[in-house]
Amino acid sequence: MTETKTKLVNPATTDAISVYGLPFFSSEKKYYRFSEKDLETVAKVNPFLETLAKNPAGGLLAFYSDTTSLKLHAKLFGILHMAHMTHVGQAGFDLYVGTKRANLSFFSSTNYNINLSEYEITLFSHPVKRRRLFVINLPLYAGVNSVELEIDDEASVEPAKDLFPKGRIVVYGTSITQGGCATRPGMAYPAIIARELGYEFINYGFSGSGKGEKEITELVASTKEATMFILDYEGNADENSILENTLAPFVSTIREKYPSVPILIISKIRMAKEMHFMDKLNHALKLARFQAGFVKKQNENGDNNIYFLNGKNLLIPLQHEATVDGIHPTDLGFYFMAKRIIKKILSIIEN
Amino acid sequence: MTETKTKLVNPATTDAISVYGLPFFSSEKKYYRFSEKDLETVAKVNPFLETLAKNPAGGLLAFYSDTTSLKLHAKLFGILHMAHMTHVGQAGFDLYVGTKRANLSFFSSTNYNINLSEYEITLFSHPVKRRRLFVINLPLYAGVNSVELEIDDEASVEPAKDLFPKGRIVVYGTSITQGGCATRPGMAYPAIIARELGYEFINYGFSGSGKGEKEITELVASTKEATMFILDYEGNADENSILENTLAPFVSTIREKYPSVPILIISKIRMAKEMHFMDKLNHALKLARFQAGFVKKQNENGDNNIYFLNGKNLLIPLQHEATVDGIHPTDLGFYFMAKRIIKKILSIIEN
Repeated sequence: MTETKTKLVNPATTDAISVYGLPFFSSEKKYYRFSEKDLETVAKVNPFLETLAKNPAGGLLAFYSDTTSLKLHAKLFGILHMAHMTHVGQAGFDLYVGTKRANLSFFSSTNYNINLSEYEITLFSHPVKRRRLFVINLPLYAGVNSVELEIDDEASVEPAKDLFPKGRIVVYGTSITQGGCATRPGMAYPAIIARELGYEFINYGFSGSGKGEKEITELVASTKEATMFILDYEGNADENSILENTLAPFVSTIREKYPSVPILIISKIRMAKEMHFMDKLNHALKLARFQAGFVKKQNENGDNNIYFLNGKNLLIPLQHEATVDGIHPTDLGFYFMAKRIIKKILSIIEN
Repeated sequence: MTETKTKLVNPATTDAISVYGLPFFSSEKKYYRFSEKDLETVAKVNPFLETLAKNPAGGLLAFYSDTTSLKLHAKLFGILHMAHMTHVGQAGFDLYVGTKRANLSFFSSTNYNINLSEYEITLFSHPVKRRRLFVINLPLYAGVNSVELEIDDEASVEPAKDLFPKGRIVVYGTSITQGGCATRPGMAYPAIIARELGYEFINYGFSGSGKGEKEITELVASTKEATMFILDYEGNADENSILENTLAPFVSTIREKYPSVPILIISKIRMAKEMHFMDKLNHALKLARFQAGFVKKQNENGDNNIYFLNGKNLLIPLQHEATVDGIHPTDLGFYFMAKRIIKKILSIIEN
């Protein structure tokens, strides 16, 4: 075996790697979901939200290269311990390879030593030198201090500027939106939809913390170049009338910035407990009716670009079987969710 | 809140809990897949296989009870560290509840502290006292020293002797058969099929170790009361002509014990690398042809109860997307596998 010379490419110090899903990366070079200035606001609203906002859920690296090998060097904030999610999903990366987005195919993931917060793993090795599109999804939960890509010394590297030609979809929500409990980052529902449809997703899913606070909704609504907004936060706002009190102001805030982009409101997927406790089911049905009614009223008041998708249908026929804990979808649940949400997006945007 | 008095029920010391999937449990009270005597043989063939045989993959506890709460006390052999599988799948339990097998519905799983080898978790709590069927799947990987079920002191407990009226299916295979990488034990493909069809599964899937050694195949073939055998071990036997050299003797060994029960041979699911490396794809295609040809020859020689199912079709349309690492199915992959294998089993056994 011949030893190939290699070089390290760091997305934070080169323009040769496109970084999607993290709007402030190009200016700040941090794998955060809000800007450093905005993180101060976020921390005041909810200190835990600052931690979550530093999780790079939805972030991805994309580039064209003719390298024959790719080793990933990851430095994470720390070690994670969730039992109901793989460590690959929590703190790992996965790689898709193809020649263009439409034919990207899953290649490998970082099956790393869970006791380490820094690791190196070869994600790709192929005897044929050929120009390929590489897409690497960032961890759904672990903060990332740095990523370096070790590739052939002679390899070309160009940014994949054409990965998401259709625009940018901003999604706000819960742990489910953030990607809990996908087995690997590419299987979170926003990631599946991005890959399938060609829209960049900005994933503002925050575990347990999607509560529609005014300051946060203003940051979400301020996302630049949005083609569509998706609000999927009932799961964190279903008590104390939080959803009822925040939904209208949230939509108004978006409408101030974006008078006419489509807004899609998705109610909560069916939780296992709702199959066994009538009061929980009735509460969920009531909140779904509230959201449907809100959208209907907006339509009647002249906003014809706001839509409702009933989350209770998203996991059918596997309502109770497609989660790991009765709440968080597995890859099975995310696949069904993505399929149904894709259909809705297409009916809204592309018809 | 009133404090309800509770009692501990231990499947190893009562007949009130049915234990399925572990043929020697009733006599030896160990959560092992082979008898203690047979484990000596196993250890001589492959020491690692002894460890794996002590993983209770496919084992489950089933009982009827009118308890309003159920807390599980688990003592495991140790702590597991696989990054590409949830700890709930590796070392956790999941609970299904219904009134009979046909309406079992996933209720909860043990989202435990991954740094502990002993844990207690409430799996069930319901205000309504009613007779229910409880089915608890055992961990796919962690050895289990003991399980105790803490239920209402006044609750009835009866074994679920009618859970699997249709018979017993013995499946031999790899890590995939064992259940890697289901997010929880009930999502391994043999567990899904057992629940769906009503056959008890004896899961002889052994990570990296399904190599068809003569001594092991004799133990597998000696399983009592088998209604069907499934051989799904290409993934561990695809080098050094192991599959080619062991398949015929394996089938002969089964036929000595069971001259006419159905035998289903399943070739390997499509692995991610086979989408990117022609030589790997060609090798897999060759081994599938070998297995199909072997079955055809057996049919021609008068054994009309041996069948072939091409694994390459089991994950369609998600060949590359339904695994966590290019090899091991996620719940998404297992769901598709189970659906196709169920169809085949029904066409063999029930038509």
